[in-house]
Amino acid sequence: MSRAVDRAELVEANAEFYAAFEAGDLDRMSAVWADGPYASGVTCVHPGWTRLRGRDEVLRSWALIMANTEYIQFVLTDVEADVYGEHAVVTCKENILTAEQGAGNGFLAGGSMIATNLFVRVDGGWRLLVHHGSPIMNDPEER
Amino acid sequence: MSRAVDRAELVEANAEFYAAFEAGDLDRMSAVWADGPYASGVTCVHPGWTRLRGRDEVLRSWALIMANTEYIQFVLTDVEADVYGEHAVVTCKENILTAEQGAGNGFLAGGSMIATNLFVRVDGGWRLLVHHGSPIMNDPEER
Repeated sequence: MSRAVDRAELVEANAEFYAAFEAGDLDRMSAVWADGPYASGVTCVHPGWTRLRGRDEVLRSWALIMANTEYIQFVLTDVEADVYGEHAVVTCKENILTAEQGAGNGFLAGGSMIATNLFVRVDGGWRLLVHHGSPIMNDPEER
Repeated sequence: MSRAVDRAELVEANAEFYAAFEAGDLDRMSAVWADGPYASGVTCVHPGWTRLRGRDEVLRSWALIMANTEYIQFVLTDVEADVYGEHAVVTCKENILTAEQGAGNGFLAGGSMIATNLFVRVDGGWRLLVHHGSPIMNDPEER
């Protein structure tokens, strides 16, 4: 497989993570994350949260978050994707438009997070092993 | 090399990253981070910052941060270390005691961050490729 194809599939796998969240679809979100021998090492840091570890704990958190998100949309910018053999790192800025449940009609909030996503190659596809997201409070580009 | 030795060396490499920061020693910090073919993929997210990318940009940020840190001490807890062949992931809670320059004598501040550190094996040793640190604003253990 060429490097360009490899990288394109990686960027696509990264986009599917955010699409699964936008769709609020736990089955799609479950398919994004690594399983089997990697299940115990699955790690997720939601912005402002401490670390969650293990596939079950991480997917429970996504079920909770998606149940409490009425609407969310991501525009990913500054996407950098590096393939290192069977592992790959994607970092990107998550530009978010969201509506919280019960916030009333038409209320939307925006914000920017920065994310590090570590993928592993399993059966020819990229599965998410580690996600670390955090709020950007000090962005020199926006001063 | 046995798995236990492998993991012990990884935890030691992770500790050296924080020791270099505590010592304010840019040479030690430079030695911690990956170089050569990995230099362009070196990535660092300081808590609340956006992403820095490339070995030079990342090391410049450390020079700046260390020059502006009079005193800092880390106690690492909840250290989890997973070795995946030539790559390894360490996540840990950084319990920080710090003094800011010019804050007057005896003023110390504390806080907790969560960190994801991705290492690559180079010449038999572990070098840091990605660091992502973020503030913990919502820790269920501390409620």
